[in-house]
Amino acid sequence: MKHGPESLSRLVDELIKLPGVGRKTAERLAFYVLKSSREQVATLATALTEVKEKVKLCSECHSMTETDPCAICRDPGRDKSLICVVEEPHDVYAIERINEYRGRYHVLMGVLSPLDGIGPDELTIDELVKRVSVGGVEEVIVATNPNVEGESTAMYLSKTLGDTGVTVTRIARGLPMGGDLEYADEVTLSKALGGRIRM
Amino acid sequence: MKHGPESLSRLVDELIKLPGVGRKTAERLAFYVLKSSREQVATLATALTEVKEKVKLCSECHSMTETDPCAICRDPGRDKSLICVVEEPHDVYAIERINEYRGRYHVLMGVLSPLDGIGPDELTIDELVKRVSVGGVEEVIVATNPNVEGESTAMYLSKTLGDTGVTVTRIARGLPMGGDLEYADEVTLSKALGGRIRM
Repeated sequence: MKHGPESLSRLVDELIKLPGVGRKTAERLAFYVLKSSREQVATLATALTEVKEKVKLCSECHSMTETDPCAICRDPGRDKSLICVVEEPHDVYAIERINEYRGRYHVLMGVLSPLDGIGPDELTIDELVKRVSVGGVEEVIVATNPNVEGESTAMYLSKTLGDTGVTVTRIARGLPMGGDLEYADEVTLSKALGGRIRM
Repeated sequence: MKHGPESLSRLVDELIKLPGVGRKTAERLAFYVLKSSREQVATLATALTEVKEKVKLCSECHSMTETDPCAICRDPGRDKSLICVVEEPHDVYAIERINEYRGRYHVLMGVLSPLDGIGPDELTIDELVKRVSVGGVEEVIVATNPNVEGESTAMYLSKTLGDTGVTVTRIARGLPMGGDLEYADEVTLSKALGGRIRM
């Protein structure tokens, strides 16, 4: 947008910073904004600033919320004896979407990754141990991602929580539904075989 | 984002309205916004609203500008005898980018498209005829897109401007540079042959 109005170039420069947005996409978005009504643009701008102002992390489980503690932690209908550990705040919504899980959550705010300088102290592991130590928790389901970092974080959690006497479980790794044996990678297939259950 | 904080769902709903942005992309963008600093988000929000407030259309050529008339129309170094007609305001920047054209522009604000109810009165054709009639214009280069609507708009312009005595030219249609004869479609190849020039 070297040749366009200055405010248009500035908008394109800001949009390019968004993930997955290159120059062409940014220009297309900017032209769309120009064609939109003043009200539509104002609504988008307000939504952007409000989300930063209103959304905090729950002091209990570290998931995203506008109230503290979050709706899930406050819900007396949720099973207090069950904690599902996930990596990121948005992982909570992935599990909520299946509408089956009735326990609570604990967001680690990342995974162990020594190469990136992320050790146990950078995560909310201490807080998890504290929540479990207080008592009343019977099972911790580790739902970190099934990759190298997620697996090693799961191992670390299992070891760390060992002293508390709580049962630590890991979500099943296997063939995805609708998947094809022929196209499955070796690691997934090995996990699927190892994790077989009686029918 | 059915299960997320309300302000987050609202942002996702607004982002989905953008062209080429689906639910997954909107959620990824919203999480990125959440992770950005308050200043970054404020800059983006300001850029969005400012572009609507500041960018107008040039009363002379209808290209986008913050000042009226636009920088190109005000530039005494630009050739007043030459007008390049384009469909949309952003087409001006495509031509400016090649850094060769020294004439002025005229933005039609669309193309003739009877099926969409867009006739000559919906475009800035009257204004173009007026600009040419005032005198001093020697050539009008029609640079509408090389598709059905663009071609018929070009024909219409050529007929309409016929009475003014101005020379009406059309940008060349042919094989794109770096293109391949083998993969060119028939219409392009026919135009490339018909428009051949002496070497």
